[in-house]
Amino acid sequence: MKKGLFITFEGADGSGKTTQLNKIKTFLDEKGYETVVTREPGALDFGKKIREILLHYDKNLSDKAEMFLFLADRAQHIEGLIKPSLEQGKIVLCDRHTDSTIAYQGYGRGQDINLLTLLNDIAVNNLKPDLTLLYDVSVETAQKRVGDEKDRMEASGIEFHKKVRNGYIQLQKDNSERIKLIDANNDIETVYENTKNIIMDLINKRLGV
Amino acid sequence: MKKGLFITFEGADGSGKTTQLNKIKTFLDEKGYETVVTREPGALDFGKKIREILLHYDKNLSDKAEMFLFLADRAQHIEGLIKPSLEQGKIVLCDRHTDSTIAYQGYGRGQDINLLTLLNDIAVNNLKPDLTLLYDVSVETAQKRVGDEKDRMEASGIEFHKKVRNGYIQLQKDNSERIKLIDANNDIETVYENTKNIIMDLINKRLGV
Repeated sequence: MKKGLFITFEGADGSGKTTQLNKIKTFLDEKGYETVVTREPGALDFGKKIREILLHYDKNLSDKAEMFLFLADRAQHIEGLIKPSLEQGKIVLCDRHTDSTIAYQGYGRGQDINLLTLLNDIAVNNLKPDLTLLYDVSVETAQKRVGDEKDRMEASGIEFHKKVRNGYIQLQKDNSERIKLIDANNDIETVYENTKNIIMDLINKRLGV
Repeated sequence: MKKGLFITFEGADGSGKTTQLNKIKTFLDEKGYETVVTREPGALDFGKKIREILLHYDKNLSDKAEMFLFLADRAQHIEGLIKPSLEQGKIVLCDRHTDSTIAYQGYGRGQDINLLTLLNDIAVNNLKPDLTLLYDVSVETAQKRVGDEKDRMEASGIEFHKKVRNGYIQLQKDNSERIKLIDANNDIETVYENTKNIIMDLINKRLGV
């Protein structure tokens, strides 16, 4: 029986989502909540091997192979970590989840979005986030923040990243109850205040203070 | 444009399918056909990493994660090796393919067979075998042949392997045009004669002698 809260952090590399996730973890820990910080791909030992393949395999990895690897990682992550943590009443803070698949493989690479949605549903076994924070940032700002150390995902070019950004915004419109948009062009402290307010609203509603 | 022939070898570990595949390769090479021997999981560099995870990960790997790993391997195998080889007119001899997924994950582990079939179709992009040889052997004989060196897949117990065997037989009934049953309880030479006859029939019909 699920008792905790499942919160996902989405957005481009360079959007600052990971920084915000870490700040909010510190804040929640100090408030006395039990938190679990995790990410996709590659949270578990299993996922680390997958992540290694995804980030460093040469350019010929087919779109479908990539898609199935993400799904394998996600299925194991849900069963092995997220579900048991939620059953123990913890707050799970997850860096990237199902929306990344739709934004990157769907909107970014042009794979069938209905199919990806179906496959996501299969992988997560109906366990959906209670809240998703979408850190929206201009592609130029994101690229500037990421700098020159680009892995296979980040090296895909400006046009790709624009499609991903627009995809995320569409996802937010289609799921406005679950996904909250945060303007991540702002400075870290402003973004953090927004993050904290949205999360505390949810906690007050769902877990009590 | 596909010009070659795609032949898959299915059956339990210990059914002798790999031995037969290698014998028929030698035979076809001597006849002057260009052959490609491959297998699932783990044919390409990519697949070797996947195979490593599949065979040696601890018991907590979820059924769904396993399923998606097989599919990732298959998608890459199709795009990276099988399809280009067939386009070059080669005869591809593949040790395990889609039917293994249905037999092991579907009939063996009780996962949804319709779903697995759909996922297989997505992974192979409509590229189906021209012929599948199913080496049927009693579970006891298979286990005796495999001996004590059991990996994660083989260590799953007698009941599991009985379900897999029955699943394979059901698949053959449902796809009797494509899948040919060979009694693999027989000695190697008898099985080889059967294998050769079926394959040469197909070659004569499709490629000419």
